[in-house]
Amino acid sequence: MEDNKVSDIPKFVEFREEGPREGFQAEKRIYSVEEKVSLIEALSETGLRRIQIGSFVSAQRVPNMANTPEVARSIRRRPGIRYTALWLNKKGFEDAAATKGVDLSGMMALYTTDAFCKRNNNCTVDEMRERQLEWLAVYDAHHLPFEVAGITTAFGCNFAGEVPVESVLASVRFVADICQAQHRPLPIIYLADTVGWANPEEVKRRVGAVRELVPQARIGLHLHDTRGLGPANFYAALQMGVDCFDSSVAGLGGCPFAAHANLNAAGNICTEDMVFMCHEMGIETGLDLEKLIEAARLAEQIVGRTLNGHLMHSGSLRSFRC
Amino acid sequence: MEDNKVSDIPKFVEFREEGPREGFQAEKRIYSVEEKVSLIEALSETGLRRIQIGSFVSAQRVPNMANTPEVARSIRRRPGIRYTALWLNKKGFEDAAATKGVDLSGMMALYTTDAFCKRNNNCTVDEMRERQLEWLAVYDAHHLPFEVAGITTAFGCNFAGEVPVESVLASVRFVADICQAQHRPLPIIYLADTVGWANPEEVKRRVGAVRELVPQARIGLHLHDTRGLGPANFYAALQMGVDCFDSSVAGLGGCPFAAHANLNAAGNICTEDMVFMCHEMGIETGLDLEKLIEAARLAEQIVGRTLNGHLMHSGSLRSFRC
Repeated sequence: MEDNKVSDIPKFVEFREEGPREGFQAEKRIYSVEEKVSLIEALSETGLRRIQIGSFVSAQRVPNMANTPEVARSIRRRPGIRYTALWLNKKGFEDAAATKGVDLSGMMALYTTDAFCKRNNNCTVDEMRERQLEWLAVYDAHHLPFEVAGITTAFGCNFAGEVPVESVLASVRFVADICQAQHRPLPIIYLADTVGWANPEEVKRRVGAVRELVPQARIGLHLHDTRGLGPANFYAALQMGVDCFDSSVAGLGGCPFAAHANLNAAGNICTEDMVFMCHEMGIETGLDLEKLIEAARLAEQIVGRTLNGHLMHSGSLRSFRC
Repeated sequence: MEDNKVSDIPKFVEFREEGPREGFQAEKRIYSVEEKVSLIEALSETGLRRIQIGSFVSAQRVPNMANTPEVARSIRRRPGIRYTALWLNKKGFEDAAATKGVDLSGMMALYTTDAFCKRNNNCTVDEMRERQLEWLAVYDAHHLPFEVAGITTAFGCNFAGEVPVESVLASVRFVADICQAQHRPLPIIYLADTVGWANPEEVKRRVGAVRELVPQARIGLHLHDTRGLGPANFYAALQMGVDCFDSSVAGLGGCPFAAHANLNAAGNICTEDMVFMCHEMGIETGLDLEKLIEAARLAEQIVGRTLNGHLMHSGSLRSFRC
């Protein structure tokens, strides 16, 4: 905890765009293929290399994701961009694998509390871990490398309350042990603040603890801005050298299953606002900020109400500089 | 810059509430005395010790401030709270001094760019400094201590662009020299990010530079969340030991004279969200978070549209903890 010097801030930060999935899944109105594709194609112009276009989940639970296959097939693909998707079970994965236009990744979903895991997967944390071994076999069969291990509610849980650091480390240890036993390279370890419990000091503490356990692993963060600390948590992570973040254009998003007080609760950290922070501090992102702002304004137009992003309303500083 | 360790974070942070002034000054609808008083009285229940209730300025330029005298007279005053106000010229100060219910402070307004200073005061930075000497005489005549020196556009200016650190330090040096020459204690030095140019590393750099120049001075920050970096800037300042912040309940505010792109541009950093950050990190504030959330919801009800605060929409973590 003593080594959070300015020099730990990375020189390049990667943003993985989640807006097209996070942004629409919680909305009541059904968004058309054309609307989603227009946003995804606007995002494709910004320099993003990875855009999550939707999820393969129950159309009854998440009606807005039902057209994900058609969205995937309709995108004019740009070379160098991975158009990713999410799934929660084998059926979802098979649907994703059968859909042209979806770039698959080997992903593990790990949990820190039985309460949240049961709600999302109808099984305990330990049972969920066992299932991940089956997933690795599925990925191997599809020649997909094991790229991401995501730890849900890594900072706190609305059903179980505080989440001990040790519960996060237990998930990391599970991943590290499997990788060692099966001679696999470590995936990126993603800590997710699924329901907005993180604060900046806790980000530092937990990232530090994970890094101590697996110094060779890349760490990523999936941050929600539920309680207004998202940008501070992002900055705290930068200070710890974290260089990979999920984010949503215009701050789109929010989790429909996470028992938020209401739908006004903010979504993911906002892509263009965080990119602006990086650029202002001299950190490269490979992204075109003005084009991101355009995409954010398009998102707001599609959703039809004021979204949480700031820069899309205030504009960047470009016009004020000589 | 090497010493931003966790241990520099203060144990207690003071919030100076600006919502009742910042929140209404930019709005088109005129808010009644009753509406303003109800918000100020709700804020008075939260533990805040200093609440800015309005400003004594041209009713033509800022129609929403015309009822400030009546607001001041109508508040049920609670002991221990200072109900402060703002003024830009002698006429404004005299009006404030003549109004029962306004707690006066000796304040200096300093600028970093001629362009912004001319726009606000029709004079240059140097002329504005000269005027401050007259202000000190006015304060002395009213037996008011010189409490606050505020440096406007301390991070950047929409009319002049980048603001060199040296322009900020020149203002600080001016204050320090006067205080030394006139045997006055140093006031709190406030750096204002008037138009949303600050980023966290720049906050650290500028606070560090001011502290180096006047190690004995208390430093305060007036931060706007114009471009979504407010919470990160706040956290950066905490890491530098800053323990005094202006903020607005519900994130009310925005500066009508600052050439923002539109009125959606966010206002000050949000009181209750930043108080939440402090409490989550173990920093005391003397404030009742739940009562602040209630006041924020009242503010939203009065303004009549969704405001920028997050916690007022998501709720705190209290109900999720055992």
